Amino acid sequence: MPIRVAIAGPRGRMGQEAVRTIMEEAEMELVAALDYKEVGTQLNELTIFPTDYEVPIYTDLKLLIEETTPDVFLDLTTPKSVYEHTIIALKSGVRPVIGTTGFSHAELMELESMASDQKTGALIVPNFAIGAILMMKFAKMAAEYLPEVEIIELHHDRKLDAPSGTAAKTAQMISEVRESHKQGHPDEHETMEGARGANYDGIPIHSVRLPGLVAHQTVLFGGEGQLLTLKHDSFDRKSFMSGIKIAIRKVMELNKLIYGLEKLL
Amino acid sequence: MPIRVAIAGPRGRMGQEAVRTIMEEAEMELVAALDYKEVGTQLNELTIFPTDYEVPIYTDLKLLIEETTPDVFLDLTTPKSVYEHTIIALKSGVRPVIGTTGFSHAELMELESMASDQKTGALIVPNFAIGAILMMKFAKMAAEYLPEVEIIELHHDRKLDAPSGTAAKTAQMISEVRESHKQGHPDEHETMEGARGANYDGIPIHSVRLPGLVAHQTVLFGGEGQLLTLKHDSFDRKSFMSGIKIAIRKVMELNKLIYGLEKLL
Amino acid sequence: MPIRVAIAGPRGRMGQEAVRTIMEEAEMELVAALDYKEVGTQLNELTIFPTDYEVPIYTDLKLLIEETTPDVFLDLTTPKSVYEHTIIALKSGVRPVIGTTGFSHAELMELESMASDQKTGALIVPNFAIGAILMMKFAKMAAEYLPEVEIIELHHDRKLDAPSGTAAKTAQMISEVRESHKQGHPDEHETMEGARGANYDGIPIHSVRLPGLVAHQTVLFGGEGQLLTLKHDSFDRKSFMSGIKIAIRKVMELNKLIYGLEKLL
Amino acid sequence: MPIRVAIAGPRGRMGQEAVRTIMEEAEMELVAALDYKEVGTQLNELTIFPTDYEVPIYTDLKLLIEETTPDVFLDLTTPKSVYEHTIIALKSGVRPVIGTTGFSHAELMELESMASDQKTGALIVPNFAIGAILMMKFAKMAAEYLPEVEIIELHHDRKLDAPSGTAAKTAQMISEVRESHKQGHPDEHETMEGARGANYDGIPIHSVRLPGLVAHQTVLFGGEGQLLTLKHDSFDRKSFMSGIKIAIRKVMELNKLIYGLEKLL
Repeated sequence: MPIRVAIAGPRGRMGQEAVRTIMEEAEMELVAALDYKEVGTQLNELTIFPTDYEVPIYTDLKLLIEETTPDVFLDLTTPKSVYEHTIIALKSGVRPVIGTTGFSHAELMELESMASDQKTGALIVPNFAIGAILMMKFAKMAAEYLPEVEIIELHHDRKLDAPSGTAAKTAQMISEVRESHKQGHPDEHETMEGARGANYDGIPIHSVRLPGLVAHQTVLFGGEGQLLTLKHDSFDRKSFMSGIKIAIRKVMELNKLIYGLEKLL
Repeated sequence: MPIRVAIAGPRGRMGQEAVRTIMEEAEMELVAALDYKEVGTQLNELTIFPTDYEVPIYTDLKLLIEETTPDVFLDLTTPKSVYEHTIIALKSGVRPVIGTTGFSHAELMELESMASDQKTGALIVPNFAIGAILMMKFAKMAAEYLPEVEIIELHHDRKLDAPSGTAAKTAQMISEVRESHKQGHPDEHETMEGARGANYDGIPIHSVRLPGLVAHQTVLFGGEGQLLTLKHDSFDRKSFMSGIKIAIRKVMELNKLIYGLEKLL
Repeated sequence: MPIRVAIAGPRGRMGQEAVRTIMEEAEMELVAALDYKEVGTQLNELTIFPTDYEVPIYTDLKLLIEETTPDVFLDLTTPKSVYEHTIIALKSGVRPVIGTTGFSHAELMELESMASDQKTGALIVPNFAIGAILMMKFAKMAAEYLPEVEIIELHHDRKLDAPSGTAAKTAQMISEVRESHKQGHPDEHETMEGARGANYDGIPIHSVRLPGLVAHQTVLFGGEGQLLTLKHDSFDRKSFMSGIKIAIRKVMELNKLIYGLEKLL
Repeated sequence: MPIRVAIAGPRGRMGQEAVRTIMEEAEMELVAALDYKEVGTQLNELTIFPTDYEVPIYTDLKLLIEETTPDVFLDLTTPKSVYEHTIIALKSGVRPVIGTTGFSHAELMELESMASDQKTGALIVPNFAIGAILMMKFAKMAAEYLPEVEIIELHHDRKLDAPSGTAAKTAQMISEVRESHKQGHPDEHETMEGARGANYDGIPIHSVRLPGLVAHQTVLFGGEGQLLTLKHDSFDRKSFMSGIKIAIRKVMELNKLIYGLEKLL
């Protein structure tokens, strides 16, 4: 039996790739798409998709779930509507795989307890790229031995928020294994404000935005006489697709909410 | 005739290397050293120098100049006393080579007009490393074709100020050839303050401070589908010595103040 | 009057982008395409192009030139046929812009003298990316001061030849300004053959091939206590398009063969 | 009771640092030094060491062991004599910590079985830098998910052999977890010999040698649309000292030969 998947945001750049990836995967079946506006009744009515993509499009998530009974709800939309979607999915026992970040702490707590109560698997995945996930995992391991660390994340200049979700997540994971402390010289001072970057529990984060860039992150660990550098470059949206497939498979085995694919590797 | 050189700050880490470099250079003669406190009458009384370094030490710059008549005054001390030193040197017709930054704009203007009035050569050199100077020169050239740029400078965590003098200088040189403009997305916002770095005429500057690091700088230029990166690593104080010798030779040919060795390459 | 351009290789990955770029450029007119096999009579018969691309396709270059009288012949095909194409274009007084490398020295000499004899402009451009061209130009400048240098080029694993044309070109430009010499320790030895890379006039070149990579090059200059690094990343074929437009404009002003766009910046 | 340590190669660059490190460590006692030539009877007779370093120097290892009964024998000499030293130490039940590589496979097998037979701990440590060890450990982990990999190692130009012991060790560790396979395009060819580097079980290794460099290594993992990079910079011999202390402590708990500190983290 293939895993029945519904996708929200099928027309977005990542959504289009995900639609194709799931359609081509033998173990999965794309049973429905959710769009925030009326764009047609089936994906194959959109010029961006092949004519054999006979997947119904809904604008109402409850109706979608009722009529197409998906196992997994993959949400690749913007933070605005994603919280509400996740609540609806969980209440119906549909396992959400959420590809956007931007939940508040309170919202996260709420989703976590709802998933546990319902014993329904749920995955929040700030980054689907397997290389990025390994980078984060290694960063946490390295911080035990080399606790002085800074993060530089670099993205295209169409990105609105800084720092990136991946950078915040990396800093959070590092902070779990090292004692919180101020880095740099105790008396250091900025002659231009912001030079020392953002501060997450003592870890400086620097955000670079330039045309031409895609999605990149460097984590630097300094020790006496040495530097350890972990870097991930995501050159292409395709880097996310293997992670999306892993997430859809793994969420079927869960009975609570997990934040980050790295917990499952 | 060798060039007669006096050095301020002979006991500092860079000062010691400079003393040795000048002593070993056939075309130069180290005629005096200036120290802010009484440490002896000659350099060879200090255990850090060989016994044949018979160079008199002064605590008063005017007396030093009167008695030893240097051609060049190399100042490797901290910003505190360096302005006063430079004034005294220029008034006596001694050519200053200043290895520290930290002058205010008003001070710079004053020194510049004093040097021009006296037709005395003077060099302010924020960075003596030839590789760093080339990096800055190339950065200025590249900004004409690729005007979207960010600077990341990385230093050991004993450094007090951020950003570094080299980073500020690089940004200033770039701003001379590109139109000032805000970079990144027009609507970008920081969810953690400082993430987008310091801002020099629209150019973001990010300062990393970690143990193990020495002195490093990366300049990133983004264009459609591409990235050009210029990077300089200074692993060792020795990287400055070839630049110090070039500076001492070049200041002899000048009759005004020049800021930055790159103008003379 | 727009510049009349014919393009060889319109269906290739770079060819498709170039077709679009020229079609959208007001100063240029795409008058014909050359394909090695019969694929249709006009570009708009191919599904990869819009229906208003009414550009005739030829399989014979002589006939193409006779019937469409282009000013410039842009060749983005493989090395196999490009030499013959260039000869035909030059003989007819059509200015070739050649985007592939792989000419032998004898062939280059022949093309050079033919272009000079006919006073016809010709451009061979191993790399159209402006950032890559700047990297090469800076490499040549830096080698005067820091003559110890190694080149690392990195490409996707579908690339057949190693090293890349850009790497060979960079090494050749550097060798023009530095004295040829063996680098590394005089007694160095490889315990695994090939570790020290290829050798171009004493300059080691290393070729990395990995999936995910696009087209990247790093040039490393070592000096006492320091390292200067120049790096170019080409993430996307779009990075070549600004260079293609510059090349087409510049070749109109030439009356001989020029190798490398950097000579014209 | 402090661990009794004897050191071979006390006058070498790394040896001097190690002597100081052990002398300053409360849990360790430096009981003897081994030198290949007669340089004095105690370390404090050498001008490079302080006058209170009253450590006897031997030229004969058997005599050293007999008279000073060390627990651990730290060998930082060249490959030439190190095999013989290790045999002598093991036969006497003294635990060797070997900081050089260059053993043949047959020698390694011999030492391994000797250590196991005698139930004596022994450590061969190609690299003492904790950051380098983490890099190798992570490389092995990443290769399971991203099996296409290349290694670039960069050292100062006084290094004789290429590739470095760390690079070979890294490749060996990776080859333990991935299926051996040829990388790159099946039909790839070098137009300059050596461009594609050395080959260790299908993993290309590239060795860069430049003045100014210290000891650096980059491991690149390519996947669809992405690149994961692990990098270690060793700027200073001090980076090895924490690893030397860890090795001396850990070898006390072993009863067989272990190759690589990463096995003990």
